[in-house]
Amino acid sequence: MNLLIIHGPNLNMLSYRNQTYYGEDSLEEINTSIKNKGKELGFQTFIFQSNSEGGIITKLHETVFNDKYRGVILNAGAYTHYSYAIRDAIELVNIPVIEVHLSNIYNRDEFREKSVIAPVCNGQITGFGPNSYIIAMEAMKLIIKEMY
Amino acid sequence: MNLLIIHGPNLNMLSYRNQTYYGEDSLEEINTSIKNKGKELGFQTFIFQSNSEGGIITKLHETVFNDKYRGVILNAGAYTHYSYAIRDAIELVNIPVIEVHLSNIYNRDEFREKSVIAPVCNGQITGFGPNSYIIAMEAMKLIIKEMY
Amino acid sequence: MNLLIIHGPNLNMLSYRNQTYYGEDSLEEINTSIKNKGKELGFQTFIFQSNSEGGIITKLHETVFNDKYRGVILNAGAYTHYSYAIRDAIELVNIPVIEVHLSNIYNRDEFREKSVIAPVCNGQITGFGPNSYIIAMEAMKLIIKEMY
Amino acid sequence: MNLLIIHGPNLNMLSYRNQTYYGEDSLEEINTSIKNKGKELGFQTFIFQSNSEGGIITKLHETVFNDKYRGVILNAGAYTHYSYAIRDAIELVNIPVIEVHLSNIYNRDEFREKSVIAPVCNGQITGFGPNSYIIAMEAMKLIIKEMY
Amino acid sequence: MNLLIIHGPNLNMLSYRNQTYYGEDSLEEINTSIKNKGKELGFQTFIFQSNSEGGIITKLHETVFNDKYRGVILNAGAYTHYSYAIRDAIELVNIPVIEVHLSNIYNRDEFREKSVIAPVCNGQITGFGPNSYIIAMEAMKLIIKEMY
Amino acid sequence: MNLLIIHGPNLNMLSYRNQTYYGEDSLEEINTSIKNKGKELGFQTFIFQSNSEGGIITKLHETVFNDKYRGVILNAGAYTHYSYAIRDAIELVNIPVIEVHLSNIYNRDEFREKSVIAPVCNGQITGFGPNSYIIAMEAMKLIIKEMY
Amino acid sequence: MNLLIIHGPNLNMLSYRNQTYYGEDSLEEINTSIKNKGKELGFQTFIFQSNSEGGIITKLHETVFNDKYRGVILNAGAYTHYSYAIRDAIELVNIPVIEVHLSNIYNRDEFREKSVIAPVCNGQITGFGPNSYIIAMEAMKLIIKEMY
Amino acid sequence: MNLLIIHGPNLNMLSYRNQTYYGEDSLEEINTSIKNKGKELGFQTFIFQSNSEGGIITKLHETVFNDKYRGVILNAGAYTHYSYAIRDAIELVNIPVIEVHLSNIYNRDEFREKSVIAPVCNGQITGFGPNSYIIAMEAMKLIIKEMY
Amino acid sequence: MNLLIIHGPNLNMLSYRNQTYYGEDSLEEINTSIKNKGKELGFQTFIFQSNSEGGIITKLHETVFNDKYRGVILNAGAYTHYSYAIRDAIELVNIPVIEVHLSNIYNRDEFREKSVIAPVCNGQITGFGPNSYIIAMEAMKLIIKEMY
Amino acid sequence: MNLLIIHGPNLNMLSYRNQTYYGEDSLEEINTSIKNKGKELGFQTFIFQSNSEGGIITKLHETVFNDKYRGVILNAGAYTHYSYAIRDAIELVNIPVIEVHLSNIYNRDEFREKSVIAPVCNGQITGFGPNSYIIAMEAMKLIIKEMY
Amino acid sequence: MNLLIIHGPNLNMLSYRNQTYYGEDSLEEINTSIKNKGKELGFQTFIFQSNSEGGIITKLHETVFNDKYRGVILNAGAYTHYSYAIRDAIELVNIPVIEVHLSNIYNRDEFREKSVIAPVCNGQITGFGPNSYIIAMEAMKLIIKEMY
Amino acid sequence: MNLLIIHGPNLNMLSYRNQTYYGEDSLEEINTSIKNKGKELGFQTFIFQSNSEGGIITKLHETVFNDKYRGVILNAGAYTHYSYAIRDAIELVNIPVIEVHLSNIYNRDEFREKSVIAPVCNGQITGFGPNSYIIAMEAMKLIIKEMY
Repeated sequence: MNLLIIHGPNLNMLSYRNQTYYGEDSLEEINTSIKNKGKELGFQTFIFQSNSEGGIITKLHETVFNDKYRGVILNAGAYTHYSYAIRDAIELVNIPVIEVHLSNIYNRDEFREKSVIAPVCNGQITGFGPNSYIIAMEAMKLIIKEMY
Repeated sequence: MNLLIIHGPNLNMLSYRNQTYYGEDSLEEINTSIKNKGKELGFQTFIFQSNSEGGIITKLHETVFNDKYRGVILNAGAYTHYSYAIRDAIELVNIPVIEVHLSNIYNRDEFREKSVIAPVCNGQITGFGPNSYIIAMEAMKLIIKEMY
Repeated sequence: MNLLIIHGPNLNMLSYRNQTYYGEDSLEEINTSIKNKGKELGFQTFIFQSNSEGGIITKLHETVFNDKYRGVILNAGAYTHYSYAIRDAIELVNIPVIEVHLSNIYNRDEFREKSVIAPVCNGQITGFGPNSYIIAMEAMKLIIKEMY
Repeated sequence: MNLLIIHGPNLNMLSYRNQTYYGEDSLEEINTSIKNKGKELGFQTFIFQSNSEGGIITKLHETVFNDKYRGVILNAGAYTHYSYAIRDAIELVNIPVIEVHLSNIYNRDEFREKSVIAPVCNGQITGFGPNSYIIAMEAMKLIIKEMY
Repeated sequence: MNLLIIHGPNLNMLSYRNQTYYGEDSLEEINTSIKNKGKELGFQTFIFQSNSEGGIITKLHETVFNDKYRGVILNAGAYTHYSYAIRDAIELVNIPVIEVHLSNIYNRDEFREKSVIAPVCNGQITGFGPNSYIIAMEAMKLIIKEMY
Repeated sequence: MNLLIIHGPNLNMLSYRNQTYYGEDSLEEINTSIKNKGKELGFQTFIFQSNSEGGIITKLHETVFNDKYRGVILNAGAYTHYSYAIRDAIELVNIPVIEVHLSNIYNRDEFREKSVIAPVCNGQITGFGPNSYIIAMEAMKLIIKEMY
Repeated sequence: MNLLIIHGPNLNMLSYRNQTYYGEDSLEEINTSIKNKGKELGFQTFIFQSNSEGGIITKLHETVFNDKYRGVILNAGAYTHYSYAIRDAIELVNIPVIEVHLSNIYNRDEFREKSVIAPVCNGQITGFGPNSYIIAMEAMKLIIKEMY
Repeated sequence: MNLLIIHGPNLNMLSYRNQTYYGEDSLEEINTSIKNKGKELGFQTFIFQSNSEGGIITKLHETVFNDKYRGVILNAGAYTHYSYAIRDAIELVNIPVIEVHLSNIYNRDEFREKSVIAPVCNGQITGFGPNSYIIAMEAMKLIIKEMY
Repeated sequence: MNLLIIHGPNLNMLSYRNQTYYGEDSLEEINTSIKNKGKELGFQTFIFQSNSEGGIITKLHETVFNDKYRGVILNAGAYTHYSYAIRDAIELVNIPVIEVHLSNIYNRDEFREKSVIAPVCNGQITGFGPNSYIIAMEAMKLIIKEMY
Repeated sequence: MNLLIIHGPNLNMLSYRNQTYYGEDSLEEINTSIKNKGKELGFQTFIFQSNSEGGIITKLHETVFNDKYRGVILNAGAYTHYSYAIRDAIELVNIPVIEVHLSNIYNRDEFREKSVIAPVCNGQITGFGPNSYIIAMEAMKLIIKEMY
Repeated sequence: MNLLIIHGPNLNMLSYRNQTYYGEDSLEEINTSIKNKGKELGFQTFIFQSNSEGGIITKLHETVFNDKYRGVILNAGAYTHYSYAIRDAIELVNIPVIEVHLSNIYNRDEFREKSVIAPVCNGQITGFGPNSYIIAMEAMKLIIKEMY
Repeated sequence: MNLLIIHGPNLNMLSYRNQTYYGEDSLEEINTSIKNKGKELGFQTFIFQSNSEGGIITKLHETVFNDKYRGVILNAGAYTHYSYAIRDAIELVNIPVIEVHLSNIYNRDEFREKSVIAPVCNGQITGFGPNSYIIAMEAMKLIIKEMY
């Protein structure tokens, strides 16, 4: 059972970002946790990071063409707040998509309060630091169990 | 390790509500799942439901007076969208509080897009139906593990 | 044929409120008119008043559990303008709910112009003083006639 | 005791409009109900329909020049939402004016939520389909009884 | 030197309107003052009143086809606040147009504060009661003097 | 195959309007182009112009009563921006309605950016000067071809 | 001379709240100060705390039924910012009501800037910590002196 | 009969300002016209210019202390759009105050569309260039005639 | 212990202002009360009135240069609602500043609801008429007692 | 005569998108129609699709460097609603650019109502499904005919 | 080559203001830097500080009357955010005006984000502390070089 | 001392853009000026242009990995107004970033007034044409001097 994890813009630089919001882990450490958790839950995880809006869109399209993936966990970074193009891409994906955020996007800058992709995702998990991904994987497991 | 689950207004009538948004489970069935998951994770779960804003506030205060609980999972129902009084109560609670919603509050009525309590909760989990509670319990487990 | 009348906050103090908006009748006098009109129309009227948001919600829930009532006439007072929790309660009620107001809520304070419960009620009658209830009972009679 | 009923724009085409909102009755059928109810309540009903804003204004003016009418029941159709000119005309009418709507204007398009004429009418009755007129006639009866 | 005076909706009923805002004069009395002032200033005055938006537009068009008029004084009544169609008509008129109002439109209802026709008129005179027309005629005299 | 063309307010005065936005053609010249294009495409064209909102509404109603027309091309002029009454009329028309504008309404006054009729038309063609009508006729041809 | 002091939601937990805004005193200590100041000014003080909106409303109603109290000092907590029901209750109270806040509500969260009850209170005292109550008692003394 | 003319900020530099909006006249030339018109109408004119908000306020106060002036013509320049302090000063003046503007403030920058002083002036005359003052003097003459 | 009292624009004309809002006292009478109260509380009061924004700013600066004053009581009049320059001046003052208003600024014009200086003052006292100053002096006494 | 057709983000996945809005055709089928229509009208069509905002910008730049193209037909997909960078690119293109949309963007999500590129395109064609491109080609033909 | 430097309200108290935003330098130290830099660049610098809006306006006017200055560097302090009167004064100045700010006005209070004078200045330099003035002098040098 | 200059979207086409706003220079000419100025100030300049949002983000990341650059001068073009992803990238850069614009972004389209990156840059320089870069280099020199 394959799972696609998408990290959006600036997440490749996580260890250089504000630790108050993003914690101390590097993206590599988070990816290791994701892979370990995946093994525990029976997922083979495929991790993709891109700073490019178009790159994320095209990656999302890939999930449509074949049966490779059973679900997508997406941290769209700042694109979350204005990329209607990514929203349209999510809308055409026919497997579950879970939106995650490391920080609590509701107690920071005002522009972060609005997610333009939330209405087309299955659910949202926000504010748990690197654990947001781990929790999302648990959630994906539950969604998939109900689907099949 | 005790966990407090708070269900807000109208959740006692879950099986009478719009199934498109709230699913087919009754609150009793959800509570059973919560209890089972609690056992699995090592939590003793205490479940409280109230239609009263003041009642929820007073319940939240209880967590402060003693060491009874290690965390709170709160579905504040429609109070989520305007109860600054519940927000103030959450702010003074000194154990983790996770906000959950059954439905995806971001693709329904416009007034549901805004959670006035989100900024003072640790994190938010929304859109997974009854599984939102189960996922929140996994999340709480992870938070508590990091705290101790 | 039983009819539930719900008076919201501050209506118990009607004779102490601004007579320009609310007229000279006390709630007791209005209730007498309601009961008399009920007899005329073949309704047995059950009257409930509460200053508590949660109390009104719980009362609305009662209508769901049994076949006691055929309709609800609701004057939610100031809760009309912000209680999304009462709105959710109305939405799950499976008998007709008519919203009434004594005063014309559209020519007073700006905040009174918006009713958050109107979208989930069957209809709204506003501005006729104590007669708003009487007219609502006529309306309920007509709705019920069409239903059965 | 004469009563003026004014149907605004597009109401002449009622049977061609969206039945979800406007029901199945034609305007002719509604007018028959109005006339019958009028006889029951002791009103002679005069019915006027116009698609023209100016036409409605001029009709409202007629009520001022003589003692012909005792009340007006007005369904201003879509003009309800922007015709400040009709509002000014209502304001100078010196007999009661009741605003009615067939559909519940509060759960449709956002622009329908605002009635610019509501502040200058005696009361508003909305959401009861063709019965809105019947109920308004009952309401008018009660208003007139209190006036004389 | 011919001058066109246009009175918009409800001005034909002036003596029935709120005297606080509109004074005690009837439209006939105002028209007499206008005619007298016209004689004094050397204008032949042509007075037109209509409750119809389209009627006012068509009247404005007339000024374009021949050299009959040298200026227009326009009190568009409540159309002032939303009739972009009248605005477009004014814009194509090639003689001076002065906007007048009897009442001070800036200290009444909020919707009256905005004139959608003001940007395309030569100037605006507001708040002087029936004298607004008299003053506008003086203003027109001065504008025309500068033009020829 | 009959086609109804409706020109709204001030379009009868086209040659007097701002040529930057509306070009140099008179309405008569545009009508000639329309008729010629109609012949080319197999349409018999019926052209109607009115400055009256009610007049346009009533004209739209005509299309419902018989099978005379197969489509409507509507330039509602400034009514485009606020006439919810025309919008309601379009909504009940049961043949295709195409909205056209001579000028690019998106780079002029702010109030012109919003078309209240666009949501209930089949499509919109804007900014091509007199050719907007010609293009709309091509579009109508294509729509009708798909319908039959 | 009796004085009613009402403490709204979460004030019973004062010593657990953010000391930056609320200071170090517990509610008990504040109540002691209030009682002492009351003695100094000749007031007998009656202190009421509730987390319930309905409870506060009902308490306010008590002041109407008898001559027990001469004035009310009200800290409505977070209800200050949205409880139009409490506002309506204050409006019907016929003795002076003074609104107090411990913190300066104008330099915290944006939602705290708006008090929906301020327009119907006699005056507002905000930002002086526990002294806000003491100052309000001085103010009440002055108001009462002017009334009798 | 004395008349006070107040020119606000930057009007002393009129001949250096944008001639499209303000015309070619210098303030001196306008003052000469004012004085001449004053003689014609029987006014002795007192002209005051200040760039200082406080200076204008204090000048307005002068009109209260004695019977020197019968009316004020005020061009508050850019203070028109935000000086609530000048507004308060006008409100306490007990002789007529007419607001004038050289340019049409409704077809320039958006911030100029709002006059915060208009609600407390007797009337407003705008858009006639230097003639705005002359017209205002005619208006003042008419107002005073009606007062005495 | 010296105290600076600053009266802003138009307060010098208090006895000429609307008595509904400002009461019947002249500024001189208020100043006498202030001085008497000052003696009672052990303050030597220095009273300053200015209609000039810059004048108030410069006065506030004086408090920084020496140890003359222990506190400032400021009624900034209409500048309260827009003078960010006075706000900046208050922010640099290093002794307590209390904002006062005679009228209840929350039940008058909408623009008066917002105080741009409130966020940088210690506290606000509003709505007690001339007593607002007296109460503020009590408040200042309490603040100073806590500081030293 | 060469024509550039640009398809924006997600259009490559057309057959996977919501058929209510986008119809049943795949992009390949649409491209075939475009090519056929091009031949009929004498255009050689060059078709470009990209999910990348930068890619679309760079493509638009190409039209400036040589005389290859006579016009551009652009469906910017969701970038339509926020890409001011694409807008700037269109603005510097010196051949006609026509904006097209498959769906009626005015009756879907609110964010789709606003096109940030419309003000800098020659015209807009929206709501005709795949025919929008065909109609745009007709429109382009007419524009080019007028240019040369 | 003379250069006028204008410091607005509260800048005379720089050393008493929040050092996070304004740095540690006093205005005297900044003025010394300005003078030194002036010598280096060949400017004779004239420095003016005022807390008075009218004073700044009048100073700006001075630059028009003679050829004394070649440019103005203006830090309007808090007047930047609302003084349309200063804006009008800048607009009539016929030499370059550069707006400067010590702090980054875009990451402080929301009201500081908007400069009402920016649209009429040549350019803006913000966020460099005392160096903002030095950089503005370099900029002025470059502007003047291009002009002559 | 190395300096990175980033030119955003459409700047590669500078000589084709509106010369009113962008001047007559091509990007190559500007780059030559930058290089020359760099030599004068002791900077080695590295110039990067991209139309891709992701490309700019990735370039900004480069400055973090090594000690290559001492500062960044960034003209983000239209991305300035909505790219929160670029904003996040700037925020993690640990050397000074100066925002520049060729045109005065405050007197053009409304959407250009807001820079979403300004709050996280050190300072902003706008409106000086190609000189904006030159001035920014002077500013960078001063910032770096203070840092080391």
